[in-house]
Amino acid sequence: MSSVLAGDENEKVASYGWAARDASGVLSPFHFTRRANGENDITLDILYSGICHTDLHMVKNHLGISIYPMVPGHEIVGKVTKVGSRVTKFSVGDIAGVSGCVGSCGSCSDCSKGFYVYCPKMVLTYGAHYHDGTITQGGYSNNIVVDQNFVVLIPKSLPLDGAAPLLCAGVTVYSPLKYFGLAQPGLHLGVVGLGGLGHVAVKFAKAFGMRVTVISTSPNKKVEALGRLGADAFLVSHDQQQLQDAMGTMDAIIDTVSADHSIQSLIGLLKTFGKLILVGGPPLPFEVLARPLLLGRKTIAGSAGGGSDEMQEMMDFAATHNITADVEVIPMNCVNTAFERLQNNDVKYRFVIDVANTISSISN
Amino acid sequence: MSSVLAGDENEKVASYGWAARDASGVLSPFHFTRRANGENDITLDILYSGICHTDLHMVKNHLGISIYPMVPGHEIVGKVTKVGSRVTKFSVGDIAGVSGCVGSCGSCSDCSKGFYVYCPKMVLTYGAHYHDGTITQGGYSNNIVVDQNFVVLIPKSLPLDGAAPLLCAGVTVYSPLKYFGLAQPGLHLGVVGLGGLGHVAVKFAKAFGMRVTVISTSPNKKVEALGRLGADAFLVSHDQQQLQDAMGTMDAIIDTVSADHSIQSLIGLLKTFGKLILVGGPPLPFEVLARPLLLGRKTIAGSAGGGSDEMQEMMDFAATHNITADVEVIPMNCVNTAFERLQNNDVKYRFVIDVANTISSISN
Repeated sequence: MSSVLAGDENEKVASYGWAARDASGVLSPFHFTRRANGENDITLDILYSGICHTDLHMVKNHLGISIYPMVPGHEIVGKVTKVGSRVTKFSVGDIAGVSGCVGSCGSCSDCSKGFYVYCPKMVLTYGAHYHDGTITQGGYSNNIVVDQNFVVLIPKSLPLDGAAPLLCAGVTVYSPLKYFGLAQPGLHLGVVGLGGLGHVAVKFAKAFGMRVTVISTSPNKKVEALGRLGADAFLVSHDQQQLQDAMGTMDAIIDTVSADHSIQSLIGLLKTFGKLILVGGPPLPFEVLARPLLLGRKTIAGSAGGGSDEMQEMMDFAATHNITADVEVIPMNCVNTAFERLQNNDVKYRFVIDVANTISSISN
Repeated sequence: MSSVLAGDENEKVASYGWAARDASGVLSPFHFTRRANGENDITLDILYSGICHTDLHMVKNHLGISIYPMVPGHEIVGKVTKVGSRVTKFSVGDIAGVSGCVGSCGSCSDCSKGFYVYCPKMVLTYGAHYHDGTITQGGYSNNIVVDQNFVVLIPKSLPLDGAAPLLCAGVTVYSPLKYFGLAQPGLHLGVVGLGGLGHVAVKFAKAFGMRVTVISTSPNKKVEALGRLGADAFLVSHDQQQLQDAMGTMDAIIDTVSADHSIQSLIGLLKTFGKLILVGGPPLPFEVLARPLLLGRKTIAGSAGGGSDEMQEMMDFAATHNITADVEVIPMNCVNTAFERLQNNDVKYRFVIDVANTISSISN
């Protein structure tokens, strides 16, 4: 399947994108180079790039690890324009995707299972030191050079704008549902938070044949949750009577909320042997009582992403079941406005930058 | 296998034991009756009864649910003296054991899997309302009448005094190691707390072929942990350097401590995908950070006991591998002193009452 295009394999790749220059997080046009397309690499011309909440944290250095200038973006869909001599998985012309991780040690037990994202030496798609010492730059840019192990094939039947967020939001919810044995018809899943991750979780869970209850702070999300998204029930998380009525009814809960909130009240919603999966990662420690966990043999687990095989499996599953994220497509020069709106939760449900059609007019 | 002895099936069973009369928790001789041996019941003449830390909490009403007079005891080994007409699992003369649960609804999904102990309508072995309205009384007594579904056969090769604590302490650590897929040769298990549960956890884990690190607040337990109990390593839980050196090295941790303590520091000891199993149940809420759980796909779970099949499997496994609890056998009239010593952690590792040989001389 491999195909090597003409060109110097040692030639660095000229790139341009939009970068944050400091913790103000304001993005502006930026020219830079990427490494030459090595023998295991592929180069993508980027078509769409999703805007994840983590991008907002990163451009503003909320985690204290940001390196500037920073081109964000880790929900990247593009067309393959070049493949290295050892590339076996992709051909020029393929549509492919890149998620949040572009490198790892390759030899640890996590890597051996394709769980690169959990490797202690995993390399983030942007803002991290790559093996060659360069700083990685993300998908708010015209192209990207990536090791084939960190690229997934996008089925051609998927709308590419709505497919982009599956590369982070999608796999973040799909993978733990599979890993923890929850993707089974008839199981009752609570989905906490109906945002970028939550609305995709509802779609996947329904496609698995699960019964889905959306748990949200916002009563006004009920109509959409039960209507267009197809959830079976809706629970307002601060309504004590609704919580009480739902006690002990859920086989599992996937909690997508990244703001601090009560975890203890969710434990009570679980049946015996129930599992609460955290994928949002609130910043402050949360409190829970041990005894309800013991008496119900209940589990609290965290999950940050999935394996490479799972990523491909998810994309294929999404194509089969017509699952994409609900997106608002924006031009590149509206990215700063999009960040402001994202901060105010003013998006249904994911911004996606139409990179290919809008970046060149800004940067040229 | 069943055998019905002569006698009126409607005749209540005369019993005597030692009971707490109030929240002072002081035990004294007590005469009472048990229900008649029904068609699904067996009657045991009690030989040994282990003293679990929960007994201490119950006689002193620390959980606020105690009913007096209360005969404690839920690690009961006895000889079968009577079996009901529908009893198929036991014969007169068998040695059998009773754990912490003597009844359940029998129809829920937990019961259908033999996980009676997690049934919402489970009936505690003592201090609880049985189906017939009577108050259950435990094993610090000469006999007990129990539904056969809540009785396990004790292999004759096991020393019966050391076998008694397996009925609670044993299954409490054995069951989650099996359920969570941890009982595998070569996996590295941390055992937090070297008491009644912890020392049995070390023995089972070593028999499973695991590498075991004991984690304790008491440096003076190191010699015994590494020596007689056969652990591979010992970690003082307040030694920051030792904790740092052990970061990310354990596949799982079983935490047997019932006092409040840091859970967060244990999370760091786990490898990616590691599991922390709480079986001690500290009373106050504990704090943990979500992000380390997410980034390592780590799990915190609780477990309170095992299923009926697991209980039998554990007993047979213990017999095969010569595993018993380390016990200090005491006469019935020393039970109050034993409770005082237990409160001061002055026991290696479990008190067991020699009921058969010492109760009659007190009560007659």
